[in-house]
Amino acid sequence: MKLVSFRKDGRSAYGIVEGEGIVDAHARFGGDHPTLRSLLDPNGLKVLAALAGASQDVALASVELLPVVPDPQNIFCIGVNYMSHLIETGRPKPDHPMVFLRVASSQLGHLQPMVRPDESEQLDFEGELAVVIGKGGRRIAKADALDHVAGYACYNDGSIRDWQKHTTQFAPGKNFDRTGAFGPWLVTSDEIGDPSTLNIWTRLNGEVMQQAPLSDLVFDIPTLIAYLSSFATLSPGDVIVTGTTGGVGAFRTPQLWMKPGDVVEIEVDRIGVLRNPIVQG
Amino acid sequence: MKLVSFRKDGRSAYGIVEGEGIVDAHARFGGDHPTLRSLLDPNGLKVLAALAGASQDVALASVELLPVVPDPQNIFCIGVNYMSHLIETGRPKPDHPMVFLRVASSQLGHLQPMVRPDESEQLDFEGELAVVIGKGGRRIAKADALDHVAGYACYNDGSIRDWQKHTTQFAPGKNFDRTGAFGPWLVTSDEIGDPSTLNIWTRLNGEVMQQAPLSDLVFDIPTLIAYLSSFATLSPGDVIVTGTTGGVGAFRTPQLWMKPGDVVEIEVDRIGVLRNPIVQG
Repeated sequence: MKLVSFRKDGRSAYGIVEGEGIVDAHARFGGDHPTLRSLLDPNGLKVLAALAGASQDVALASVELLPVVPDPQNIFCIGVNYMSHLIETGRPKPDHPMVFLRVASSQLGHLQPMVRPDESEQLDFEGELAVVIGKGGRRIAKADALDHVAGYACYNDGSIRDWQKHTTQFAPGKNFDRTGAFGPWLVTSDEIGDPSTLNIWTRLNGEVMQQAPLSDLVFDIPTLIAYLSSFATLSPGDVIVTGTTGGVGAFRTPQLWMKPGDVVEIEVDRIGVLRNPIVQG
Repeated sequence: MKLVSFRKDGRSAYGIVEGEGIVDAHARFGGDHPTLRSLLDPNGLKVLAALAGASQDVALASVELLPVVPDPQNIFCIGVNYMSHLIETGRPKPDHPMVFLRVASSQLGHLQPMVRPDESEQLDFEGELAVVIGKGGRRIAKADALDHVAGYACYNDGSIRDWQKHTTQFAPGKNFDRTGAFGPWLVTSDEIGDPSTLNIWTRLNGEVMQQAPLSDLVFDIPTLIAYLSSFATLSPGDVIVTGTTGGVGAFRTPQLWMKPGDVVEIEVDRIGVLRNPIVQG
């Protein structure tokens, strides 16, 4: 299944993408499940799967897509998690995943404008695979970790580089409103299988900026789930943004920042393309 | 007003503390406002104030207090924000506030057990003043900042020191389940006035470990609100944990870690005492 959160005629909803249309699951389950989040556990996914193939309620092109999960309880981001990005930053290979957090208000959906804030010109892209938790838990063993995944999406962990370096802690530069693009949809894990076989690309105005196989992750997805769940109880809808590969604008010569009018795309094969225009704001 | 979130007979609720009792506001407004968070904006506080003085519904001693705001959208924590703590860490005075994030699942309420996790023995205390946002907003001017505060509470930003140092980013060591104590209640800002006139103490098993005037903050509360809102839209119920002063266990000789059976208290004058026993788990 491909699951989306969307807005149409002022109503926030969610549903299942079927071809060029959406089966509106919110119209059926919105009373008990106001957002997609609480239907991402294994039982909820079964409920949604039973709807798949129903007649489409709205055209995909007629809705505004929202972040796949608009209201995650936790958004865990992983820094320097590709060997190629590790090399360009000059950092040594870490003993543990580098974890920082995003807040939900920093997110946006497919085709929504990503904002270069008035506070800085240093808006950079980071193409990443997002893992969305289905079955929650604490102290999840690596061997069981992929059973806890509802599905996968593309993520652009947009970063304001000068604010990221205000102190040792990344939070300000990673949490400007509407800088973290998440979409276009979640593809359920049954359709992906082993995520390490995926490839990821970032394109800016059509030109490839980043490209890597997920097999290049320093800490793979089961290791990340095990590590994060050793301190925090994971919940359905939690997002793990798994890190970016080499090629970010900050480490280019000369440095390259995104500017209003640009269009940035993150593609992951078997998932799709997340596309966002850049605006000033 | 003193506002609390609590659980009684399996029901999560919130209310106003009056003497030794609680006026149960959830029983009146729970339909539209399932948690206290959405009543912390200026209109909500007026609705609550109209209830103050009503007959008490439950005895304070009969309920389990929860984190003052159990479900904040954002918990912003500030590092090394007292001159005295800055000196003990050996860090230079920063140009910007050091900001990291907590997630809601890391919180606990007054008298609930704070957990030393099986993963580490290095559970440390950090006594702090928590600022709770009432009126949301983006790019809030310093001069207006205190108008955006609903009230204040005590916070123990419990930290797992070795996990805090796994990488440069603090998130893992600051987000173990049930390590961030927040309570016992929120005292509304009209009863506090200028927060820089407050004093804070941390006691471990009755012995004073930390003590400071809030006037020792490197970045004062209006400056923090202005800085945080320059990147993120603040929402009612957002929490700003304003930093800890000198005396934490990690910088003592020998180092001092909290252990099961200990009792830790954070006191802020005109607010009260937040007390938590330590358990293993």
